[in-house]
Amino acid sequence: MTVPDLIRVLNGERVDLPPVWIMRQAGRYLPEYRELRTRAKNFLDFCYSPALATEAVLQPLRRFPLDAAILFSDILVVPDALGRKVWFVEGEGPRLEPLIGESNWRFDDPEHALQRLAPVYEAVERIKGSLDQNTPLIGFCGGPWTVATYMLQGQGGEKDRARRAAYEQPADVDSLLKALVEMSARHLAQQVKAGADCVQIFESWAEGLPFPMFERLIIGPTEMLVRRVRELGVGAPIIGFPRGAGLAISEYARRTGVNALGLDTSVWRTDLTPAGMPVQGNLDPQLLVVGGTALERGVRDVLERFNNVPHIFNLGHGITPEATPENVAHLVELVKGRA
Amino acid sequence: MTVPDLIRVLNGERVDLPPVWIMRQAGRYLPEYRELRTRAKNFLDFCYSPALATEAVLQPLRRFPLDAAILFSDILVVPDALGRKVWFVEGEGPRLEPLIGESNWRFDDPEHALQRLAPVYEAVERIKGSLDQNTPLIGFCGGPWTVATYMLQGQGGEKDRARRAAYEQPADVDSLLKALVEMSARHLAQQVKAGADCVQIFESWAEGLPFPMFERLIIGPTEMLVRRVRELGVGAPIIGFPRGAGLAISEYARRTGVNALGLDTSVWRTDLTPAGMPVQGNLDPQLLVVGGTALERGVRDVLERFNNVPHIFNLGHGITPEATPENVAHLVELVKGRA
Repeated sequence: MTVPDLIRVLNGERVDLPPVWIMRQAGRYLPEYRELRTRAKNFLDFCYSPALATEAVLQPLRRFPLDAAILFSDILVVPDALGRKVWFVEGEGPRLEPLIGESNWRFDDPEHALQRLAPVYEAVERIKGSLDQNTPLIGFCGGPWTVATYMLQGQGGEKDRARRAAYEQPADVDSLLKALVEMSARHLAQQVKAGADCVQIFESWAEGLPFPMFERLIIGPTEMLVRRVRELGVGAPIIGFPRGAGLAISEYARRTGVNALGLDTSVWRTDLTPAGMPVQGNLDPQLLVVGGTALERGVRDVLERFNNVPHIFNLGHGITPEATPENVAHLVELVKGRA
Repeated sequence: MTVPDLIRVLNGERVDLPPVWIMRQAGRYLPEYRELRTRAKNFLDFCYSPALATEAVLQPLRRFPLDAAILFSDILVVPDALGRKVWFVEGEGPRLEPLIGESNWRFDDPEHALQRLAPVYEAVERIKGSLDQNTPLIGFCGGPWTVATYMLQGQGGEKDRARRAAYEQPADVDSLLKALVEMSARHLAQQVKAGADCVQIFESWAEGLPFPMFERLIIGPTEMLVRRVRELGVGAPIIGFPRGAGLAISEYARRTGVNALGLDTSVWRTDLTPAGMPVQGNLDPQLLVVGGTALERGVRDVLERFNNVPHIFNLGHGITPEATPENVAHLVELVKGRA
């Protein structure tokens, strides 16, 4: 049995034609996804339906020769499982009952919470059973701080209130992060047990933190998370994606223990990682809206820039609903060297 | 006559107690500013009233022993003067008629546009006449790309559409940037002629750009702007503040020709600038909401971090309306070593 390119690269091997997948490849830019989405009455129900989640994962693979599948789920299933109310407002994004203002922060125990996520692991099993053996499956969770900001503020957007809470209630916020680390580690381990071949930690809100806060809120919890995953007996590669880390990205790469580094759109240097660490990224998602020669030039730039390191081709941020399937097809052809 | 500390530092001198001023020091955290603001029916009228703008500038100086005054104005007076309609929606922010979608992008000529900004220069003269000789006055403009994004999209927030326009209509966007460079250079020169001692370029939206775009949209236009200011005979120091530049900040520092570098909250390294370049920043503005020992620790961290370079103490982003005047007073005392 041959090892899929994605796994080879994650193991530190440089391959000539980099494997390619796309963050949010199962998503609203696909008409068949938009149709599928109408079959559940809300987004969390959709995520918790193994049949619908499996179908969503398979849709982009039928259209494009992508090198990986990624579980269809949401980073906020973790707070949901921990007993915090989560809902999605159409066109606005997720909402939670904010922890800020509550006097006692209590969460369900991880063992119990994990049982609530059984449909997610069932989806992983189903997806794995539907994929050919050369297509690895990526599991994921949110970074502890990213998930914490939603839980603290009750919504996304400006992270000011969450950061303020980290200054004002340091002990509370630190134990929230600890709870998220434990729950996220078990969640990742369970995904791998159910069939995921590797996992990604989406730290979507790493930007703008003073460095001492970046160390405390991002590096520390991620390092604990990686260590806990390993303690749970999981050997699968872990991709860390600290979006907006800016100057702190090399510290993240060196100190968290992740095996590979996801790069946001702004990262162009290749001297930031420990030697041989695989990188993943980082085409501007807007180029999948724009298309044409700008897309071609952008793909070529990314390929050339990361030509000498183990590289997984991806976007620097999730694909947007305005992207076209035609541009995605063209992107994949360009990376595969057939266009 | 002694040279004020701010100017000494901008000339590359390291002083023991760094001079301190605060981005948006004239602003909504001050009750007297909120009262003053009600005297004009809209925000642009307020900016264009030399009497009100002067009073706004002086308010924080009466409360705190700050080392600089900064002109009260807005970066969007430049598109306004160029003939683009600009208005402010209470609680939401600025709105413009978006260029995206318009077929012919035409702007008034800079000479004519400059005449419309006469009230701004009158305000500079009045402010300068009201300040004691040891308090330098800072003039400013927006970075060309930052102003362009507002003009392209018609509002702030996500810069996706503006970036897309830069890919799709490269010639149009490049000539927009050129027009903004010319107009901004004249605007800065006029401020200095009217009495400003130094100027700052607020590039508030430098983040998330792929590096080739950062070079094209930020570094190139800023370098042109600095050069044009010098061609207009202005010798005053120029502070560049590329907020969110991340890894690209050292390229900005080396290539644009700015004399000093404004640092956002995330920058903690001191090896990013050419030797001896003054830096300005970068306390987390949320600490002026939080106060107490977190504020004290934050101020100490910033002072220690930049202890060995010419340093102007400031925030890493504008002060927020939720900050308290008491915390600002405490901050200034801490920097001056009296607390």
